[in-house]
Amino acid sequence: MEHQSNDLQDRDHKFLTKAIEEAYKAVESGDGGPFGAVVVRNDEIVVSCHNLVNKHTDPTAHAEVTAVREACTKLNQIDLSDCELYTSCEPCPMCLGAINLSRIKRMVFGAKAEAATASGFVYFIQDAITGTDSYQKANLEIIQADGRDAVIAEQLNNKTIPAAAAEERATDCICNGWPIHHHNLL
Amino acid sequence: MEHQSNDLQDRDHKFLTKAIEEAYKAVESGDGGPFGAVVVRNDEIVVSCHNLVNKHTDPTAHAEVTAVREACTKLNQIDLSDCELYTSCEPCPMCLGAINLSRIKRMVFGAKAEAATASGFVYFIQDAITGTDSYQKANLEIIQADGRDAVIAEQLNNKTIPAAAAEERATDCICNGWPIHHHNLL
Repeated sequence: MEHQSNDLQDRDHKFLTKAIEEAYKAVESGDGGPFGAVVVRNDEIVVSCHNLVNKHTDPTAHAEVTAVREACTKLNQIDLSDCELYTSCEPCPMCLGAINLSRIKRMVFGAKAEAATASGFVYFIQDAITGTDSYQKANLEIIQADGRDAVIAEQLNNKTIPAAAAEERATDCICNGWPIHHHNLL
Repeated sequence: MEHQSNDLQDRDHKFLTKAIEEAYKAVESGDGGPFGAVVVRNDEIVVSCHNLVNKHTDPTAHAEVTAVREACTKLNQIDLSDCELYTSCEPCPMCLGAINLSRIKRMVFGAKAEAATASGFVYFIQDAITGTDSYQKANLEIIQADGRDAVIAEQLNNKTIPAAAAEERATDCICNGWPIHHHNLL
């Protein structure tokens, strides 16, 4: 954690307060759980969102994923590297993945994952932060296909890269949502 | 990895082939990268999706996230615990998070993450599988708010849980997209 100036603290306070207000809205409206997130660019709010899991019957509609999606739509770009994200709580693995994929440059969170965990939420959040093995703990059977299918699937990248490379762009881009720095692919 | 019967292998082959077909569609259409995913329930395909990152200008529109979202919409439920997911490639952290949140019971993937990595994709995928520290490696500055804001944010859960608990449901549910087994919350 870095030490911040008072000015920066005041600025962060303003945007984080907005994220917390969104979290309350989520519960009051019944849209979802108590989580809010705000995307900021050049000191201005791009989008202000809250958890919409219930409203949209969508387990991926966490505040942070929703904020990333809506900011990209609004700015008409998949790269949010000039943006910051303010979120009421440390993000879960899914959301942290989405934040990383969008290249958001700075994230400020309010509640630590432990606070959510203590209130009945699962260990899932801080595992993502600390890099421990939440994935193995999950109740999910994971199987790689047998040899034949694995080979066919692994040919996908080799077969499709030439086509994608033909549309290679001059600037560094995000490939299929994966940040790629050394090669530009669609 | 478990050993599977020939019948199960044939079944998995059928659905994984569909996921791989979707991956080719993604590239042919220009919708996104070479990734496809299929949700199956009771031996029937619920949805068959591919990467839509480019089409929707949405870095979260990976095949797996799209499949989870569309399956939930189609089935009108946020719990996919009676479903399986077939995906052309090992999922990234975001997608694995989404899969876990949806409670999908079984996942079969085609290409190993290493195959995508070797083709120019980043280390991101296998870190999620192996639980290593991709998150720390990401080029993202992460800051917790100062004391005052952190306290306000951490009160969120305590303040909103009573309201949510009033709507407690008889069955085990997914809370805000977080799987909760010991307490039922909105």
